[in-house]
Amino acid sequence: MREVTAPPDLYARIQQFHATQMHALDGGEFDAYAETFTEDGEFRHTPGRPAARTRAGIAEELKAFHRERFAGDPVQRRHWFNMLRVEPGSGGEIHATFYVLVVATRPGVRQPEIAPSCVVHDVLVEDADGGLLVRSRWVEHDWQPEPATTVGAAAGGPVNGPANGEVSR
Amino acid sequence: MREVTAPPDLYARIQQFHATQMHALDGGEFDAYAETFTEDGEFRHTPGRPAARTRAGIAEELKAFHRERFAGDPVQRRHWFNMLRVEPGSGGEIHATFYVLVVATRPGVRQPEIAPSCVVHDVLVEDADGGLLVRSRWVEHDWQPEPATTVGAAAGGPVNGPANGEVSR
Amino acid sequence: MREVTAPPDLYARIQQFHATQMHALDGGEFDAYAETFTEDGEFRHTPGRPAARTRAGIAEELKAFHRERFAGDPVQRRHWFNMLRVEPGSGGEIHATFYVLVVATRPGVRQPEIAPSCVVHDVLVEDADGGLLVRSRWVEHDWQPEPATTVGAAAGGPVNGPANGEVSR
Repeated sequence: MREVTAPPDLYARIQQFHATQMHALDGGEFDAYAETFTEDGEFRHTPGRPAARTRAGIAEELKAFHRERFAGDPVQRRHWFNMLRVEPGSGGEIHATFYVLVVATRPGVRQPEIAPSCVVHDVLVEDADGGLLVRSRWVEHDWQPEPATTVGAAAGGPVNGPANGEVSR
Repeated sequence: MREVTAPPDLYARIQQFHATQMHALDGGEFDAYAETFTEDGEFRHTPGRPAARTRAGIAEELKAFHRERFAGDPVQRRHWFNMLRVEPGSGGEIHATFYVLVVATRPGVRQPEIAPSCVVHDVLVEDADGGLLVRSRWVEHDWQPEPATTVGAAAGGPVNGPANGEVSR
Repeated sequence: MREVTAPPDLYARIQQFHATQMHALDGGEFDAYAETFTEDGEFRHTPGRPAARTRAGIAEELKAFHRERFAGDPVQRRHWFNMLRVEPGSGGEIHATFYVLVVATRPGVRQPEIAPSCVVHDVLVEDADGGLLVRSRWVEHDWQPEPATTVGAAAGGPVNGPANGEVSR
């Protein structure tokens, strides 16, 4: 196993960035979520749905997705990230790979649904002020594994597959 | 989304503080847990139960709660925190907002119960020696949403509702 | 509760180390996993199975365990760590205690199985290049509590029971 040293400050910064970003998403603030991407950012969150591109496109895709799946459903979703691996890339890019579970609770029902289990591949960059932005985010769903070749072809530009081999099957 | 920069050292310190605190709580060390609060600390952990105040009051409330709920039940509970957002406040206060799941296992039963899903709002301060203490902790349960007005009225002094809007519904 | 100050840099480094290590394990890279232990490392992961020793022994034990449990099963397992407590020990040892859940997903089944809940006790050391290695790892399963005396007797050398009392029952 190749141990990769990530600057400890960067590690905590990404954790804080992810937390703030998910508090926004789970609070239904889709525009705020989209603003955490670069202007030309790319977001693939569900197999079978095309990648969303640009901040406007990402906000629109999220609104459409929530209308289709959760209209009239008083669900409170919470995205849990874990096992974050940070790897500095070339040209100022930062690769972050981590696990995700989605926790969904409905009023009056104590037991949440916890599904699906995913692996996410972020490519992060810093803006002019040193703030973090997502250049691309690709969500792999464990229950819907994508063939490696399809993944490579579909990913196109910024997402070139997993930054490291250990999470591929 | 407003990206808030938390000092990276503080971020890891709070994670360590929370871990130590929850290891104590999950080990049944209620007095040790209460000592992680300020002398005048406030703790609201379950809708419908009044806030506990002072270290003695918090320890007493926890003992009563566990007697009522878990007497004779050999359950091993584990509190999982995640998606921690740290925000320096005024007057030396540190606001920490994070997600929680409670994992409960009983002897001989491999599958734990994982419920409920919560959001916690901590107000932390440093003592004279630089150690962290909880001035107030307020636990929101996703399955029992509290009306915003009730929350504000009940919170009173130190807890003034979420430190940021993104987790409110 | 005794608040223990862990160097914040070390805290993030251990999180990164654990993430990289688990990405390898969950990707089926058992040799890579074994290489994260010292040459004389010790690994006890399941009650009733003897401790594995040395890198070769640990890799062999993992392969045998996966053959017995998961041969022909297209499961994708993901190890989730949480509530990490880091405590510098004597002689350069670092004690790390944390909670674990195993998330297991099968193709076509959206809902993962999340079990069992465990507590892990790591003794870590740094190699000549400053990289982290596991000298010993002991996994306690919440649903199969081991009597304290058995634990002490079985643990032998490097693992001398929990580094702190709060997680014992």
